[in-house]
Amino acid sequence: MRRMLVAEGLGTCLLLIGVVGSGIMGSALADGNVAITLLANAIATGCILYAIITTLGPISGAHFNPVVTLYFWLRRETDTAVALGYIPVQIAGGIVGVWLIHLMFDLPIWQFGGTTRSGLGQWFGEAIATFGLLFVIAGGLRSKPDAVPTLVALYITGAYWFTPSTSFANPAVTIARVFSDTFAGIAPTDAPMFILMQVIGLGGALALFPWLFPKSGE
Amino acid sequence: MRRMLVAEGLGTCLLLIGVVGSGIMGSALADGNVAITLLANAIATGCILYAIITTLGPISGAHFNPVVTLYFWLRRETDTAVALGYIPVQIAGGIVGVWLIHLMFDLPIWQFGGTTRSGLGQWFGEAIATFGLLFVIAGGLRSKPDAVPTLVALYITGAYWFTPSTSFANPAVTIARVFSDTFAGIAPTDAPMFILMQVIGLGGALALFPWLFPKSGE
Amino acid sequence: MRRMLVAEGLGTCLLLIGVVGSGIMGSALADGNVAITLLANAIATGCILYAIITTLGPISGAHFNPVVTLYFWLRRETDTAVALGYIPVQIAGGIVGVWLIHLMFDLPIWQFGGTTRSGLGQWFGEAIATFGLLFVIAGGLRSKPDAVPTLVALYITGAYWFTPSTSFANPAVTIARVFSDTFAGIAPTDAPMFILMQVIGLGGALALFPWLFPKSGE
Amino acid sequence: MRRMLVAEGLGTCLLLIGVVGSGIMGSALADGNVAITLLANAIATGCILYAIITTLGPISGAHFNPVVTLYFWLRRETDTAVALGYIPVQIAGGIVGVWLIHLMFDLPIWQFGGTTRSGLGQWFGEAIATFGLLFVIAGGLRSKPDAVPTLVALYITGAYWFTPSTSFANPAVTIARVFSDTFAGIAPTDAPMFILMQVIGLGGALALFPWLFPKSGE
Repeated sequence: MRRMLVAEGLGTCLLLIGVVGSGIMGSALADGNVAITLLANAIATGCILYAIITTLGPISGAHFNPVVTLYFWLRRETDTAVALGYIPVQIAGGIVGVWLIHLMFDLPIWQFGGTTRSGLGQWFGEAIATFGLLFVIAGGLRSKPDAVPTLVALYITGAYWFTPSTSFANPAVTIARVFSDTFAGIAPTDAPMFILMQVIGLGGALALFPWLFPKSGE
Repeated sequence: MRRMLVAEGLGTCLLLIGVVGSGIMGSALADGNVAITLLANAIATGCILYAIITTLGPISGAHFNPVVTLYFWLRRETDTAVALGYIPVQIAGGIVGVWLIHLMFDLPIWQFGGTTRSGLGQWFGEAIATFGLLFVIAGGLRSKPDAVPTLVALYITGAYWFTPSTSFANPAVTIARVFSDTFAGIAPTDAPMFILMQVIGLGGALALFPWLFPKSGE
Repeated sequence: MRRMLVAEGLGTCLLLIGVVGSGIMGSALADGNVAITLLANAIATGCILYAIITTLGPISGAHFNPVVTLYFWLRRETDTAVALGYIPVQIAGGIVGVWLIHLMFDLPIWQFGGTTRSGLGQWFGEAIATFGLLFVIAGGLRSKPDAVPTLVALYITGAYWFTPSTSFANPAVTIARVFSDTFAGIAPTDAPMFILMQVIGLGGALALFPWLFPKSGE
Repeated sequence: MRRMLVAEGLGTCLLLIGVVGSGIMGSALADGNVAITLLANAIATGCILYAIITTLGPISGAHFNPVVTLYFWLRRETDTAVALGYIPVQIAGGIVGVWLIHLMFDLPIWQFGGTTRSGLGQWFGEAIATFGLLFVIAGGLRSKPDAVPTLVALYITGAYWFTPSTSFANPAVTIARVFSDTFAGIAPTDAPMFILMQVIGLGGALALFPWLFPKSGE
């Protein structure tokens, strides 16, 4: 169990290093062309997702995301004790990742996001983004478990572009990004609504995927 | 059968979310550099294609494209009843995807494409694009079925760049894109010719691939 | 044998459609930023290479390149009759591909490259580029044959950037690009030296790889 | 053993050709937009890493990096004699790669980096970058050895963006980049501190990974 918790914490920490760090680097170098920043951000996020899911998957299942943990817990594929351990570790790991990246880029460690991310479109987008993330996880586990790291990595790389919020799709990531006033940051007051919409996306996933992707034997 | 139809509808819906959404986001951020928009558009489309074909392939075959359904039906690998069910569901799913993405980006849901896509070059390009798509599907199924999601994803990512129409290669996608006056849209009057050329590409595929990629035993 | 020749011709034709087409599209849209054009060119070329090698590999071995055919012939892995058939078909297929792409982009079909590609650096680069291409093919066939399509695709995508000539590394591609006065074109007078350097790269490959990558049993 | 040394030298040589060459090409073409240069640099580096690790892995283990060699030696997975042979060959191969790329791009062969890469943030970043590289290697070898070439390639492509130093993470690469006054170069006086931080990253890896990624049987 201790190894599982370390895996979830370390993985989420590395994920946030990737997400926030590439946002800082991308916006510093892109000469104001936000599409190039987002391209760097999306590619780097996909790369680190592939790395952490492939290496840590056999240890902890590679959730790195409370919504994913909730999905498996509600599907009775993750024990309650495990779920209760994972979620705080994911949140803490994500925040530590943000602080480490601030250290690397010589920024004040303690800061809060200033970017307003709000409005019906973005909220709806977060629900769809989370639904889509659970879609590739649940579908991939039934059709080709080996492909799940690639599926998640490519899905998120794409979803950066086809959702107006750039697809947070993860409450731990959302909370951690509150602690950064950089490209990937989010204003603290906007985070709760994002998390609520992610939970609504989870609801859609729970309504559809047990039927669409039945376990063998169901 | 119901699960197959839902898979085709949901997959095509997600495909259009990817295609149209990344076009909107890319053109909003790229500061007028259309090549960067198209890069985002091509990469995001490849990502979502990999995701939907990998996850839904075992359920419905992951056609998401009336020309693909027709190809398999004419090759007697898809039943008539299935083909008759798939095509309307693909078209409807695609249109719903366009409407969902308009919602996400706070755009009027009901709109029609204004982009003129016409001329001998683009028409010829659509025929070649569709021929090429069926080439990777038919060839991949004979040589390495596991690679088909990657083949289709990479082929389309590339074909965005080497066909003047950016490779619609799919009547359901063409119809859905009529309903969007954004980067990926197409003027309603230009759609029929695109679809005709896609069918001509199908003709070329049917003429060559049964011989080039024989089933074992043929 | 007829199927093998068609595979080599069709594959090389599609390769040139990818290479020349993405160069045209990329330079038309990139607003003068040549790095963005080259990024599109490199990515699209990698995509089409993966597609043609995966699908046609089991039929013809997926050479699409006289230097590759020569390598296998000199290593006695390809019959003389096959090699004699492949090379003209690769050259013809490549030229047809260039003409098809001119048709698609409404350009005069008959044209000759105006881009000067010359000088010691570029010549040396072509030798290294070809040596590297044969390195991933010979090495991949010994270490992980399934990965050869990915190896060639990624190697060439990278080599666009780390050789001053953007890595033609293929006499059939070089000859075909003589017939296009677009981004990917080459002046007719510069082609022979490129081909000579590709053959020198082949010489290096033949000197080293039989020892470095022995067949099992050697 | 001779084949192993040639593999390490040739692989590191090709790696530096990729890293330094794509930096030169990218900065020459990107019209001053450094993010586009870095995108080319990161993608090309990932491509060549995948190529050399896949093809040479079965021969030498594909270290190409003294820190990786040290990690395996300290874990008793590499013999002392092998480690003592690998490290100088990696350094020499890297320098030769830099000189070859200068030849290709018609630059003076003998030059020294002028780019200052220094400061607490970059130093800390190098330690994290090296820790992360050993993380994907150690973790990948335990969870999915076949995926190690992809893991390293994608990790480094991403890490270019989420570390302020663009992730050298390799003393042989660091030394070789001292010999180039181009985009990827580093001032000679800044190299020792980078190497020290890479060794500190190795220390972190040795503290954590034997426990996190135990060999079966431990």
